[in-house]
Amino acid sequence: MERNTHLYYMKRALELAKRGEYTVSPNPMVGCVIVRQGNIISEGWHERAGEAHAEIIAIRKSTPELTKDADMYVTLEPCCHYNRTPPCTDAIIKAKIKRVIIPSLDPNPKVSGRGIEMLREAGIEVITGVLENEALKLNEIFFYYQKTRLPFVILKWAMSLDGKMVTSTHDNKKLSSKESLEHLHLSRAKVDAILVGANTIREDDPLLTCRSDEYSNNNPLRIVLSNDLSLPLSAKVLQDQDKAKTLIVTTNKVSIEQIEKFSSKNIEVLVTESGENEQVDIKALLLELGKREVTGLLVEGGSKVHASFFKANCVNRVEAYITPYIVADLPKKLALKPLDFQAMGNDIFIKSNV
Amino acid sequence: MERNTHLYYMKRALELAKRGEYTVSPNPMVGCVIVRQGNIISEGWHERAGEAHAEIIAIRKSTPELTKDADMYVTLEPCCHYNRTPPCTDAIIKAKIKRVIIPSLDPNPKVSGRGIEMLREAGIEVITGVLENEALKLNEIFFYYQKTRLPFVILKWAMSLDGKMVTSTHDNKKLSSKESLEHLHLSRAKVDAILVGANTIREDDPLLTCRSDEYSNNNPLRIVLSNDLSLPLSAKVLQDQDKAKTLIVTTNKVSIEQIEKFSSKNIEVLVTESGENEQVDIKALLLELGKREVTGLLVEGGSKVHASFFKANCVNRVEAYITPYIVADLPKKLALKPLDFQAMGNDIFIKSNV
Repeated sequence: MERNTHLYYMKRALELAKRGEYTVSPNPMVGCVIVRQGNIISEGWHERAGEAHAEIIAIRKSTPELTKDADMYVTLEPCCHYNRTPPCTDAIIKAKIKRVIIPSLDPNPKVSGRGIEMLREAGIEVITGVLENEALKLNEIFFYYQKTRLPFVILKWAMSLDGKMVTSTHDNKKLSSKESLEHLHLSRAKVDAILVGANTIREDDPLLTCRSDEYSNNNPLRIVLSNDLSLPLSAKVLQDQDKAKTLIVTTNKVSIEQIEKFSSKNIEVLVTESGENEQVDIKALLLELGKREVTGLLVEGGSKVHASFFKANCVNRVEAYITPYIVADLPKKLALKPLDFQAMGNDIFIKSNV
Repeated sequence: MERNTHLYYMKRALELAKRGEYTVSPNPMVGCVIVRQGNIISEGWHERAGEAHAEIIAIRKSTPELTKDADMYVTLEPCCHYNRTPPCTDAIIKAKIKRVIIPSLDPNPKVSGRGIEMLREAGIEVITGVLENEALKLNEIFFYYQKTRLPFVILKWAMSLDGKMVTSTHDNKKLSSKESLEHLHLSRAKVDAILVGANTIREDDPLLTCRSDEYSNNNPLRIVLSNDLSLPLSAKVLQDQDKAKTLIVTTNKVSIEQIEKFSSKNIEVLVTESGENEQVDIKALLLELGKREVTGLLVEGGSKVHASFFKANCVNRVEAYITPYIVADLPKKLALKPLDFQAMGNDIFIKSNV
């Protein structure tokens, strides 16, 4: 790409933003570059909620002499309100930036358009619409949450080529490749909460922490759906609450005694109105999670839980790993040769020799 | 690719061979080019069993003056026996070809090595091993059959992204894209027989003919597995036997009267020893189909039939269409946005927004 264009610098700012992918939630990924006479003189990106914003980092890494009359490319409209940190607009004005280039307005109603307004009032030129789609895609979860105050819900599963959901009853741990497991753990780091059903706890007893090589400390909230609280107290997900919190969600059909079994272990039990079939009302649950600032929710299964999310029409994205095995009703799963796959119209065609 | 190399001409011969893909079964695909002083002077390919072989076509399209001392590239060892047509080796010797270049020996024990031997005895130089893997792959079904006298078995199905086999109960006809349907019909033209279970007949009532735009007359044998012959006589697959033959395979538990219901309609009923659970013995069936020169068998379902083939360890290849829908237990299937997919280790990772 040609240098010295808005696209060039914004692309760089988006690259920087992406560095926060696995650490920044519930905040958005934001990147920033400051350009003076065609040269990038400073860069910044937002790493973690509560820490400095990308614009502030880029300004701090430069000097007042250099930022004066420079251009700033930032991947989101600068904030103009005190939240966890002071407003970025003040710092930009103080740094005497001449032009600010952004892809789009902030979807957050507290900010949207007002950041721009404050900059323009201070005499700073603001250009919008540069790589807007890319920027919207990058922070899809954040933007969705800002607009709806509901978590962006991602359903994820692994299945054999013959469509059998992979569970421990079929030697789960070996069905996904090393790459898929790393990808799964990274996708946990991108969200604020992971949800599974009680069956998954009873059958697989997962830890539900993020065990990526790089981001092992970014554990989202672990949520377990259990309509009747019939969960073993020894389940791995109920231990080590200092490493990762667990929230059990149940219905108002359970007794105080049942709840106390868990709350005495310092595990929160959220009681919701039971929806259809005396099950947790998914929509009500999402409203509550939204209030708790869960912007992205990863639903890992099992298939009954997935079905209840589909039924409630509460799914934003699906993600599936197709593994090179046939489960059928064989005593032992059948390994396939490497999968050969291609797009075929709107479908995917997969073939493999046995 | 550089011209004037063995690879260059053999690649061309393989291209020609592939033209017979949908018409040539149970014979192999074969292509042939004759090269004189670096120029291709004639080409041929085998279109249909009983018609002229590729070598003969290429020789006929040239003249004795031109074939004398020329090189012949042919994708399979030339035959030296009378079968449906006279031996090619005689014609090659008579055409005074100087060198014959082939990828590999014919796996057919009637031919293997003997074609080469006859050519060499006649003073023709024979070079082997040029693009051998490509040639073996091209005629995978034929080679397998020649070695085992059993059909090469391909199991095929379409399923939603959540792994539900697509049947008419879920609005089958619209689940596969136009491209996948054309591909399915073409894959029927590549084999000698298609097999389904009685449930598929009762639920979907398929025609099981090849309705590709280009190859609509290449109907393979239609085979229906029915352990107890409980098939509706009105089933589409039992009509129009002049267009495509149907073979019903059942167990020795059925009565003569039951069989006569079908045989009186001119439909053959094959009675096999019943295997486990009073079901058709898959291995015995394949032996019988091998005797009938079924080299490739396409098993289209349903999932019980697939399971019985897997259980009998009688599957050579699997082919699946993944369609951009979620079936779950929704009243109406859920359409997904275009599927985004990539290899992930040995798995395939697929994602889509809802």
